Amino acid sequence: MNVRYADRMKLAKASFIRESLKLASDKSIVSFAGGNPDADYFPGPELRRCCSQVLDGDWKDSLQYNISEGYPPLREQLLKKMAAMGVRGGLTNLIVTSGSQQGLDLAAKLLIDEGDEIVVESPSYMGAINAFQYYGPRFLEVKMDSGGMDMDDLERILKKHPGVKFIYTIPDFQNPTGLVMELPRRKRLVELAEQYGALVLEDSPYYDIRFTGAPLPPVKFFDNGDRVLYLGSMSKILCPGLRIGWIMGGAGLVEKLVYLKQAADLHTNELAQRTVAAYLQETDMSGRLKLLNRSYCERKEIMTGIIRDRFPGSVRFTDPQGGLFLWMELPDQYNAQRLFDLSLQKIKVIFVPGSTFYPYGGHDNTLRLSYSTVGPKETASGMNRLADLFREVIPDP
Amino acid sequence: MNVRYADRMKLAKASFIRESLKLASDKSIVSFAGGNPDADYFPGPELRRCCSQVLDGDWKDSLQYNISEGYPPLREQLLKKMAAMGVRGGLTNLIVTSGSQQGLDLAAKLLIDEGDEIVVESPSYMGAINAFQYYGPRFLEVKMDSGGMDMDDLERILKKHPGVKFIYTIPDFQNPTGLVMELPRRKRLVELAEQYGALVLEDSPYYDIRFTGAPLPPVKFFDNGDRVLYLGSMSKILCPGLRIGWIMGGAGLVEKLVYLKQAADLHTNELAQRTVAAYLQETDMSGRLKLLNRSYCERKEIMTGIIRDRFPGSVRFTDPQGGLFLWMELPDQYNAQRLFDLSLQKIKVIFVPGSTFYPYGGHDNTLRLSYSTVGPKETASGMNRLADLFREVIPDP
Repeated sequence: MNVRYADRMKLAKASFIRESLKLASDKSIVSFAGGNPDADYFPGPELRRCCSQVLDGDWKDSLQYNISEGYPPLREQLLKKMAAMGVRGGLTNLIVTSGSQQGLDLAAKLLIDEGDEIVVESPSYMGAINAFQYYGPRFLEVKMDSGGMDMDDLERILKKHPGVKFIYTIPDFQNPTGLVMELPRRKRLVELAEQYGALVLEDSPYYDIRFTGAPLPPVKFFDNGDRVLYLGSMSKILCPGLRIGWIMGGAGLVEKLVYLKQAADLHTNELAQRTVAAYLQETDMSGRLKLLNRSYCERKEIMTGIIRDRFPGSVRFTDPQGGLFLWMELPDQYNAQRLFDLSLQKIKVIFVPGSTFYPYGGHDNTLRLSYSTVGPKETASGMNRLADLFREVIPDP
Repeated sequence: MNVRYADRMKLAKASFIRESLKLASDKSIVSFAGGNPDADYFPGPELRRCCSQVLDGDWKDSLQYNISEGYPPLREQLLKKMAAMGVRGGLTNLIVTSGSQQGLDLAAKLLIDEGDEIVVESPSYMGAINAFQYYGPRFLEVKMDSGGMDMDDLERILKKHPGVKFIYTIPDFQNPTGLVMELPRRKRLVELAEQYGALVLEDSPYYDIRFTGAPLPPVKFFDNGDRVLYLGSMSKILCPGLRIGWIMGGAGLVEKLVYLKQAADLHTNELAQRTVAAYLQETDMSGRLKLLNRSYCERKEIMTGIIRDRFPGSVRFTDPQGGLFLWMELPDQYNAQRLFDLSLQKIKVIFVPGSTFYPYGGHDNTLRLSYSTVGPKETASGMNRLADLFREVIPDP
């Protein structure tokens, strides 16, 4: 049958990561590809208790239709969390989303007309690029260096493209690079957004996944004019399966997001919202997060140690102080997709070729490695196999 | 701050029903407005048991990221349910959605380019109109009579508008009218869709809410060519708070919907999916549905009885054999919105003015009454108050 799809469907393709989830269910494969948090650190029994508690209590309301904004006591808890990060607001400033992925989709729907220009970090989170692309934007890519987004490059872009709708950033342990935006740049980002009339979309699911050093204030901290929409997520610090995220921003913007939320799924699963609210009320997450971070840090150290010691000297890589990912650049002439194919076939180790993190592809010599999905022993064994393969393919000069 | 929203946001407004949910939390108001199922019939304790069972078992996978298509055992259960209705298919034909509201949004995103023509029943479900409108379609309204969608009117429309992308129908106990599409029309609908190259979007959340008579085969039953996308929902037969719906259709269409689902929220809450799968596996719903239907039928009888006996003779109304709603038409010169304002203020009874069920408004003399939200005594008391008010405003000739 010849279906007349909407034009936007020409862009539709399977996400590499979602597809590699299917590969990852093959237990003989060592996957550094997915962004899955380590399930050993999910508070399963605690969530079971909170969930039962909710269903022992007011189960009728917990299973009924509810308001699109989200469960008020959960929103209060999330506001408290934001306040602890220096960002203050009330219930009209925060709604619950079905994971922060929905936040990305709703924000794009709110702001992007076909042909509109938006700025993304180069590289950036593929799930965001994927969500945005269906609304037909032109992506403008801003450079990054070890201090995160390059503000001079951003200013150059904004000057040249006065119509930019928003600047999308992941300031903390960016996906895919693991980079952190330096403090002065956060302030400057808001100033530039003000000056050029753009919004900022701050996506910060890894904020609390920090191994060393003190947390930096969010970009939103510097926002006095409803210029920044902040996207938060429970997926990396609690668990992703419950699909709980949130958006915080100016009341006018948030009200419009509620309309879109109504059209998208009426509201987020109420039982999950109440379960997470109960969990946050009863539990101090800091102890568990400390253990989680220690564990990720240990694996990251194993990973970077093996890269330093055994990978070809010509590869460059980031050494993140948090988050789930590090980024690798091979010498220009090497193709990460070909290495992926070889690696899957010969040593059953997978990662994500980097070109998928650029809206218009390219950068074929880059790749992302995740240190959150497999334990220390498997990390060592997978990385050693990868070292052998990379040395075979990429001879030292 | 002057935000440059996307053009589609000019259409954004609060949904009347979502807003009236807020009113309905005032316990002194009798609400015939919402489409909430009666929470007394939610299987709360059983769902609690199933949920605990899931979290006692493989809680790590239940709380982890999972595939966008949905939890395979749940999809198997839903396929079994569809097969019992005469609609056969495999896992590639069915995905889980975050309520059928998400199914409406994804289907619209899949098919509608700005300016595309789509056919909706006149009147139709406001949540669907709301989801569709953001993609910029032109709505073509097809007449209904006591046998559901008027097929001659549909043919006339399709002839005149050869570009129609899809025909949206709620064939069983339609929202808002309570009407059922007659059997021969279901077959003819698929034939017309074939002939004119349109798809059919069959939305059937009330299929199992039937008081008398044998169920009719779904429109999709007559589809041999992937012409019909079927949207199902657990909201009316189990509970809405878990946000579990599904879409079934041709594998090619469904694959593209998976891409959109990835961009929209990655996947539906996994714990809810597994809980519902366990519930469906263990439980025969028919006993509970019988009780639920008997209860709705009783209230519907009370409602129609009072309308027959005590409302002005000039009002016309449907007498549904299932679903949650009946539809009322006042004499032309009366305005249901004004009656709503009066009714809320004077007797604290609410319903939904009908113009909200038409994409371009109008039909100000119509309204929808729901018999699912309050018990028999309150139904009687609310309807009697409404009778007094209507008789005061609409004198018998």
